[in-house]
Amino acid sequence: MATAISNPILFPSTSHHHDHNRTTLLTLRFPQTSLRHSKSRFTVSCSQSRRRPPYVPNHIPDPSYVRIFDTTLRDGEQSPGASMTSKEKLDVARQLAKLGVDIIEAGFPAASKDDFEAVKAIAQEVGNAVDDDGYVPVICGLSRCNENDIRTAWEAVKHAKRPRIHTFIATSAIHMEYKLRMSKDKVIDIARNMVKFARSLGCQDVQFSPEDAGRSDREFLCEILGEVIKAGATTLNIPDTVGINMPTEFGSLIAYIKANTPGIENVIISTHCQNDLGLSTANTLEGARAGARQLEVTINGIGERAGNASLEEVVMALKCGAHVNGNLYTAINTKHIFLTSKMVEEYSGLQLQPHKAIVGANAFAHESGIHQDGMLKHKNTYEIISPEDIGLERANEAGIVLGKLSGRHALRKRLEELGYELNDDQVQSLFWRFKAVAEQKKRITDADLRALVSDEVFQAEPIWKLGDLQVTCGTLGLSTATVKLFGLDGVTHVACSVGTGPVDSAYKAIDMIVKEPITLLEYSMSAVTEGIDAIATTRVVIRGETSETSTSTTHAVTGAAVVRTFSGTGAGMDVVVSSVKAYLAALNKMLGFKEASPSVEKIPASSKI
Amino acid sequence: MATAISNPILFPSTSHHHDHNRTTLLTLRFPQTSLRHSKSRFTVSCSQSRRRPPYVPNHIPDPSYVRIFDTTLRDGEQSPGASMTSKEKLDVARQLAKLGVDIIEAGFPAASKDDFEAVKAIAQEVGNAVDDDGYVPVICGLSRCNENDIRTAWEAVKHAKRPRIHTFIATSAIHMEYKLRMSKDKVIDIARNMVKFARSLGCQDVQFSPEDAGRSDREFLCEILGEVIKAGATTLNIPDTVGINMPTEFGSLIAYIKANTPGIENVIISTHCQNDLGLSTANTLEGARAGARQLEVTINGIGERAGNASLEEVVMALKCGAHVNGNLYTAINTKHIFLTSKMVEEYSGLQLQPHKAIVGANAFAHESGIHQDGMLKHKNTYEIISPEDIGLERANEAGIVLGKLSGRHALRKRLEELGYELNDDQVQSLFWRFKAVAEQKKRITDADLRALVSDEVFQAEPIWKLGDLQVTCGTLGLSTATVKLFGLDGVTHVACSVGTGPVDSAYKAIDMIVKEPITLLEYSMSAVTEGIDAIATTRVVIRGETSETSTSTTHAVTGAAVVRTFSGTGAGMDVVVSSVKAYLAALNKMLGFKEASPSVEKIPASSKI
Repeated sequence: MATAISNPILFPSTSHHHDHNRTTLLTLRFPQTSLRHSKSRFTVSCSQSRRRPPYVPNHIPDPSYVRIFDTTLRDGEQSPGASMTSKEKLDVARQLAKLGVDIIEAGFPAASKDDFEAVKAIAQEVGNAVDDDGYVPVICGLSRCNENDIRTAWEAVKHAKRPRIHTFIATSAIHMEYKLRMSKDKVIDIARNMVKFARSLGCQDVQFSPEDAGRSDREFLCEILGEVIKAGATTLNIPDTVGINMPTEFGSLIAYIKANTPGIENVIISTHCQNDLGLSTANTLEGARAGARQLEVTINGIGERAGNASLEEVVMALKCGAHVNGNLYTAINTKHIFLTSKMVEEYSGLQLQPHKAIVGANAFAHESGIHQDGMLKHKNTYEIISPEDIGLERANEAGIVLGKLSGRHALRKRLEELGYELNDDQVQSLFWRFKAVAEQKKRITDADLRALVSDEVFQAEPIWKLGDLQVTCGTLGLSTATVKLFGLDGVTHVACSVGTGPVDSAYKAIDMIVKEPITLLEYSMSAVTEGIDAIATTRVVIRGETSETSTSTTHAVTGAAVVRTFSGTGAGMDVVVSSVKAYLAALNKMLGFKEASPSVEKIPASSKI
Repeated sequence: MATAISNPILFPSTSHHHDHNRTTLLTLRFPQTSLRHSKSRFTVSCSQSRRRPPYVPNHIPDPSYVRIFDTTLRDGEQSPGASMTSKEKLDVARQLAKLGVDIIEAGFPAASKDDFEAVKAIAQEVGNAVDDDGYVPVICGLSRCNENDIRTAWEAVKHAKRPRIHTFIATSAIHMEYKLRMSKDKVIDIARNMVKFARSLGCQDVQFSPEDAGRSDREFLCEILGEVIKAGATTLNIPDTVGINMPTEFGSLIAYIKANTPGIENVIISTHCQNDLGLSTANTLEGARAGARQLEVTINGIGERAGNASLEEVVMALKCGAHVNGNLYTAINTKHIFLTSKMVEEYSGLQLQPHKAIVGANAFAHESGIHQDGMLKHKNTYEIISPEDIGLERANEAGIVLGKLSGRHALRKRLEELGYELNDDQVQSLFWRFKAVAEQKKRITDADLRALVSDEVFQAEPIWKLGDLQVTCGTLGLSTATVKLFGLDGVTHVACSVGTGPVDSAYKAIDMIVKEPITLLEYSMSAVTEGIDAIATTRVVIRGETSETSTSTTHAVTGAAVVRTFSGTGAGMDVVVSSVKAYLAALNKMLGFKEASPSVEKIPASSKI
């Protein structure tokens, strides 16, 4: 039941057929028999092979195509505790390219040297990995409306095949008066000049956002947007910065802008919806229905406060609701959703609630061990998306479960099926861990493997390494831990400490060796698989307390100086050992940042034009 | 700027002025100066003192008033691992009454003896606690469309001052064909007869739901709804059971039903939106805009799969969006939102993600330790709801922080401010725990207190009690735990075991004493406050593996037999000790269920009419 493409001449003819360029068929799972006599309106209206149109900054050849702009690495990464290392950001960017997002907002290059380097590395690698069909993600850098920010952003993104600069200034009365202390005319003047400046650097793809558009005067919005179009902006992003808009209201805002902004027909309208009232997905959809053709989202909906519209919800809702959403479509390869979600959960430290839509642990709970009644022969009685659509195997169809007799080949094969691309050394070191676990645990599940990969592969460069640990604890008091660490210098350090519990005493012993004053902000642990012999993953978030370790970064939106916090994870069958590993991982990440940015340029908190 | 009440004659005159009957003023936090020259449409449109209209089952005197129907204890409690004990359910129901919800769906009485007893206890106590203004929540029991279920529901709820029976049958083509195997005529016949049957028992307040209405044929829906109205239904609830509807689509469904169902003007239309695509809050609001005057929600949005529309999001969105939502209002006392959310998180075991709207840990993260730029003088620059509105004190204004010199009086005062109503014995036992913690930890925060209350007060009756625990573990292997437990008989049992880690060995030692084959399904731990000397709370979910302990319950919607799972929490400064406490708490809960239901009537899985 594929919808015919209305204007096939717009699509470049190509003999290749690549994942990214197909909209994978979403089975809405209504049996044919049922459809026939119910005359249900819920027929499958998703097309089978609608292709991603060629990329032109200010124009989309197919009016039904919607671009997905992912800002996990910028808006998402600035949430408390979600700081990622450059290596982690690069991993996420590679994964976003697999997912097929149109634009990756890789960061805010002027925030710190580390942010700059991460955006540059992503632009160089991911921004140049053109696939057989010509797809390569646009790499975008954020900048406030000042020359320094814009120049810095350009220096970072210009290495990509399709670089974009995204600049913004606030347009609501409250922000102009209390944050900017500027008149409307002044704000228009700056916006126009800065968009021109971005173009003057050679950037052909410039996005402008009127911050707090959701609370801005509509006439003023159309005026400033008209001016930045004349100045050369190619995408206009309309943010509901404080998440206050109702869906109909946000839709009508987009429709108003579309109807009343001079020159709007020559640019792309974009949405950016915060989730403070739980309405970000709906607002984003209403924006698309009203004419927006770029949607800003994050994986898992992460972001400050209540976060942003989540990629997985927006993409799946567009698919499931195609019949009322005007047959809009994206080029997201939904099979990569689950793994991307897991990776971002791991790196950001922002754990999902079990009832998170699409990617939460219970989202497909019908698949769990719960006894199902025989009457549920048709999964589609209660299931509108099948787990396979997002790359999640059904538990009872997972096929391979590894055990201690499984070899290196089986391990590598399963890791590849889970989406991990690892080199030989990585597989080798994982294999030894795997065998050690298999000695004690009969069945090694996918969740166990994921925990091992995170623990073994997705780690910062080790500065301090765990040698041995010995702990005594219990209700009788005097918990004592002895820790042996290896430093970068190869020297072995041993310390012991007493504490209020085994973790407290072990962390104190580490502190005695490492001698970095830090504050532990969060501590959590979970074992996702059944049985206490499962591998438990511990996650900690820390903050350095000396001027050297309290790495500061500039907050993109508020302009405030923000002290970075670092998360670390550790996995193991012994909860105290995994807790110690997590602490060391966070410490190494913090010390790595310190090492990597010896001369962070201090950027003033307030915008300077 | 209070909106005048359009028809004041409908409101009973009373000299009392009670919290429940006022809509607390939501400051939208736009400074007057800003409003003046921005002509913003976001003026404060919430009324200051609109009162809850008197309760009549099928009629609401004020057309702008929206009833809140909370189904945390029914739909929420049936999520995997979220089983609550009768005592926990009663605690939640009391809290829901403080919040001022109009209707509490207290459970599915026919599911098991335990469910029946819980609903009955809530009907007896909470359903009769009429306040000075005449407010008392309606207590509702769910039942499938068969006489046994309906009779059982009535026996449970009839003790309330305002009892309601809620019955349902599926109306979508796919459900009628594959689940019910019934014709449309047969379904109408059953629905009509069962609503009549419910009325015949003496129940004046009968709610009917056409299950999977979101995928049902609209004409058929209007036909069956017209029939149940004639049979005596007073509320018609329209569920988007599989969470597939888009907001506009769901709104238009409600509008269609309102326009095309004979007799609809004499009943209340209700919404029930699942969150599979992240649209439940928006769908619920669209339903209200289209004419629904009862909204079904759960605290924290819990429920099966991706859960339901969340009470806190729906209520706050109605407030913040009053200017586009037709000035609809509820009588929810939003100051109780935060504590209710925490209680449900604790009891259900469903932990919220940090970016959960309204109640997540980061929702008001501007208040956290992050260095704020001086420019943010006006909180409202980025804040549309103030933490105080939902009963959350700002961290920097929290005032009292307790320490080891704090006395019993200060502790009780702080607990009361946090919303806990405890008796003297409970305060006394908490006080000793508090002093023990204060010996080791300088500042006792609200989060610490909450953890202590949960650990000390909100627990199942102890069958096994922890005496002592001693553990040795580390990387050198041979983790060993020795456990001393006291049984109900007063006898002391000691066992030791080796394991893969400290928790594994301790749990094995407990198993050796308790001798109940169980499976550990989940294990997680978190310390919410800063510093590793914080109190860590461990949560486990277990399932019994013998016929006696694998307590079965009937799933309300699918009719499937579901094996109950039990969560337990334990708090302490030693992570191994808190893990052992959590395991014992879950075990005690499971054994309590077993003890409490010696003769659970086995209810067949499929509906029987």
